[in-house]
Amino acid sequence: MEPPAPRRRVTIVDVARHAQVSTTAVSKVLRNAYGASPEMQAKVRRAIDELGYRPHAGARGLRGKTYTIGVMLPDIRNPFFPDVLDGITHTLQDTEYQVLLGPGDCGEKGEARVTEALIDRGMDGLILVAPLASRKRLDEVASAVPTVIVGRHGSSPAYDTVADDDVEGAALVVGHLAALGHRRIAHIEHLETDPTRLAEMPNARRADGYRQAMRAHGLEECIDVVSTSYTQEGGYRGAKELLERQGTHRPTAVFAGADVVAMGALEAITEAGLSVPDDISVAGYDNTTFAAFGPVSLTSVDQAGHEIGRNAARLLLERIADRHRPSVQVRLSPTLVPRRTTARAPE
Amino acid sequence: MEPPAPRRRVTIVDVARHAQVSTTAVSKVLRNAYGASPEMQAKVRRAIDELGYRPHAGARGLRGKTYTIGVMLPDIRNPFFPDVLDGITHTLQDTEYQVLLGPGDCGEKGEARVTEALIDRGMDGLILVAPLASRKRLDEVASAVPTVIVGRHGSSPAYDTVADDDVEGAALVVGHLAALGHRRIAHIEHLETDPTRLAEMPNARRADGYRQAMRAHGLEECIDVVSTSYTQEGGYRGAKELLERQGTHRPTAVFAGADVVAMGALEAITEAGLSVPDDISVAGYDNTTFAAFGPVSLTSVDQAGHEIGRNAARLLLERIADRHRPSVQVRLSPTLVPRRTTARAPE
Repeated sequence: MEPPAPRRRVTIVDVARHAQVSTTAVSKVLRNAYGASPEMQAKVRRAIDELGYRPHAGARGLRGKTYTIGVMLPDIRNPFFPDVLDGITHTLQDTEYQVLLGPGDCGEKGEARVTEALIDRGMDGLILVAPLASRKRLDEVASAVPTVIVGRHGSSPAYDTVADDDVEGAALVVGHLAALGHRRIAHIEHLETDPTRLAEMPNARRADGYRQAMRAHGLEECIDVVSTSYTQEGGYRGAKELLERQGTHRPTAVFAGADVVAMGALEAITEAGLSVPDDISVAGYDNTTFAAFGPVSLTSVDQAGHEIGRNAARLLLERIADRHRPSVQVRLSPTLVPRRTTARAPE
Repeated sequence: MEPPAPRRRVTIVDVARHAQVSTTAVSKVLRNAYGASPEMQAKVRRAIDELGYRPHAGARGLRGKTYTIGVMLPDIRNPFFPDVLDGITHTLQDTEYQVLLGPGDCGEKGEARVTEALIDRGMDGLILVAPLASRKRLDEVASAVPTVIVGRHGSSPAYDTVADDDVEGAALVVGHLAALGHRRIAHIEHLETDPTRLAEMPNARRADGYRQAMRAHGLEECIDVVSTSYTQEGGYRGAKELLERQGTHRPTAVFAGADVVAMGALEAITEAGLSVPDDISVAGYDNTTFAAFGPVSLTSVDQAGHEIGRNAARLLLERIADRHRPSVQVRLSPTLVPRRTTARAPE
């Protein structure tokens, strides 16, 4: 088979030649400008269809909109983020906007690179999911491009935010486990040292909520936090560390800060020959498809990812339409979904 | 707090003013053009740094490269695709290329829209994962932008392909189950009716491989295929249908065409009060993190997603460098990873 002739991109010059009109005339039709007769319009439109011409998005970008929303996802393996993304695409499906995803899964540096790339490529708006950047950097990004921040707390006049109440979510888990008679309830958190992020990141808010709730239940002495990461491997390492505690220091329940963390914890517990929930209870956060998966049936906190995504997309469209409107903070209330991985504390 | 003044994008004019040189001089430096003295270069570079100027990717796009690779993923919930993506980003990490993902998860129409969007936004190259488009359409895409097709078989002079040998992968599963004494081995496939896709899509090749292998083992009479989709829900529905078969028509083993399908099948089987692998064996395909997850421990076929991604990125870089080189088809051999969901057939 002969290779097909490499096709050069059809240009406005080709359209003009094909329609036997001037390039100025084509340009007028493309811009819906005054002065293009209906006949001229018909001729040009026909040539456009026949040649399959598409205005270059780069060129359109220079004139203004690219009709593209960039979404930075910190980790495409975390099954929570597709829920957020579904909410975003669902809201945008009847608009002209297209979503492109920037995978930012190498920490702060990778995130900076992908955010820069999205700005550079002329996105009309950005949705940053749980970004690690400094407040100053977020303000800079938001002043360059309309921006909505998902998951992270704290507010700025420069961008809108959508998050769930992570402190409340953690309290729901601790309350549930305490009601089942657990006292030694441990928490696996995502290590955080930056002071701003300690105040704003969802992982840090959950760890804070855990501590507050333990105190509220008179379990201050039982507070036990291991710091790893919000990944399956982080959950695995965290649970292994907890299982090494001796005697009465070993927890009877583990609150993993995310379902993906609980997944790793369940793995470590199974490997140690222990049974969930008979020997040890496990709860997650996010109520992902993994938690709902029958054979796992993980108790989790539902923070309504789809609703979060829907709100983020709606706020972004509003902000694209009016850059200078006051910023909005949407906070959603989480709910607990008890399943089979949590049960009464062993005697 | 006062809203920060909305920042206007820094332009070449600002850079020229700041460096106290002409815009032509700035432009020369940016293009590395002949005629910019070292002093001039230093002045302009300093101004660029101080103002944080970045050439507009749209404008760069018009001159040629945007240093962006667009990756179309058909379903961001399928845990196999992050493996492919890891291989791609790993290969590109030391280059100037940035990956943007186009989620194409609404069938052929959604895929067409996202592919169009990626072309329109001036991607330098495309990696399309298991695309549904017609051959003609794929040729068109590949003649507009350097393209590598992942997962789908069939070849064209216009694009390169990377796929695993799906027929062999299916044979590995059937062989494994037959060796364990199973005869009534059923298959859950992704429904396919288009004749080209029946010849080229990985799902259709797996179903074909299953039929061929059943015949090779003298189990032609036991061939039993249910057609749903390569999703968790598709696996759930498929297994429910199989569990409704009466008496000796009920399979003792299920080969799910993808791990995500096996996930749904395990759910349906658990719900029906049956035990895996004592009552029924289950095998998947893709060897995802889900299959490797201890408490699930799913027998699966490893098609080396990371290697697939690595090969795709390498071929794409080569093709971007030389549009006219002959097309290449890379085929990788899968391996079987037996785990705890498959065991001897019940008596």
